[in-house]
Amino acid sequence: MTDKIALTPATHTTPPAKFSHGVKKGNILQVAGQVGFLPAAEGRPPTPAGPTLREQTLQTLANVQAILEEGGATWDDVMMIRVYLTDIDHFAEMNAIYNAYFEAEGLKEAPAARTTVYVGLPKGLLIEIDALAVLG
Amino acid sequence: MTDKIALTPATHTTPPAKFSHGVKKGNILQVAGQVGFLPAAEGRPPTPAGPTLREQTLQTLANVQAILEEGGATWDDVMMIRVYLTDIDHFAEMNAIYNAYFEAEGLKEAPAARTTVYVGLPKGLLIEIDALAVLG
Amino acid sequence: MTDKIALTPATHTTPPAKFSHGVKKGNILQVAGQVGFLPAAEGRPPTPAGPTLREQTLQTLANVQAILEEGGATWDDVMMIRVYLTDIDHFAEMNAIYNAYFEAEGLKEAPAARTTVYVGLPKGLLIEIDALAVLG
Repeated sequence: MTDKIALTPATHTTPPAKFSHGVKKGNILQVAGQVGFLPAAEGRPPTPAGPTLREQTLQTLANVQAILEEGGATWDDVMMIRVYLTDIDHFAEMNAIYNAYFEAEGLKEAPAARTTVYVGLPKGLLIEIDALAVLG
Repeated sequence: MTDKIALTPATHTTPPAKFSHGVKKGNILQVAGQVGFLPAAEGRPPTPAGPTLREQTLQTLANVQAILEEGGATWDDVMMIRVYLTDIDHFAEMNAIYNAYFEAEGLKEAPAARTTVYVGLPKGLLIEIDALAVLG
Repeated sequence: MTDKIALTPATHTTPPAKFSHGVKKGNILQVAGQVGFLPAAEGRPPTPAGPTLREQTLQTLANVQAILEEGGATWDDVMMIRVYLTDIDHFAEMNAIYNAYFEAEGLKEAPAARTTVYVGLPKGLLIEIDALAVLG
């Protein structure tokens, strides 16, 4: 019997329902859909890092990374990254930000698989990302 | 060699194509996208539990649970729940129904990760949910 | 420590950002979102197999299969297939093409789970598919 553990970085805002920002069981780690919310601050509702795709993409990736780290994983363990955008015209810019982020992280040559689709998101949010990692 | 087995609760309507409502292989269990269809009845086409978000959400969760049980799993084994809604204005109501459902199920303190996005669904359907579980 | 390896069939077009068409680690294989692009040809930008749902669905399935094969897997190892369509009216036609494809492949009686939702995709693309496989 392997325990499932919730991964809840102290910096993260409280989820809007009964779910965890991440869970880990055995060697599988699942990151819930992250958006570009700034670290939680007492008395402040969840607040995006800014109105731009750049600000939100970088904050979203940082939020995913914090959950990976909470579970003892790194980007190198990530198998799949799901990117949800609201606007097809954001694809090229998101890719440029994404590439620069992972170059700065020194990611090895075999990055994760990825799917990007265009959906609706709550007002003011331009991007959401979730991830599946396999550790060990 | 581990066999992959199809999980097909007797209550479920026949999938509209060659796929299974769920599959299990080793300790991984994947639930296909479930909607709020009532249990199958001979001669009746797949029929939603009702037109409201509440009726469809509760039936959808019951349909996911039936597949988990068919595979010997429970909600506690679920790592990831993907919720697809058609209307951003349904988020708060879905969360309230979702929370009440899992409270009634007595879910442990480490629930699954979750991603919610807003997409198109077939006419009359307001919610679809799939899930990934890791057993053992 | 199990290595994560990138799966990059020689026929595939270069991804538009730092991600892999597929990755494998241990017994988990993840296929990135595939679309109906023809095999790569030098000097030609990524080009869909045709404008129709049929052409794109068959090419997309072939592209998924090539990645599975690159990782030593087959359709029988696939647990989950995610289908993204742009038009709800394409559902029945996609299912017919999908069924015929898998009948021709001689798929065993326990096919994968599946979720189909309707989203936005880049201009000219009608379908995207990704897949999760568990080997062994």
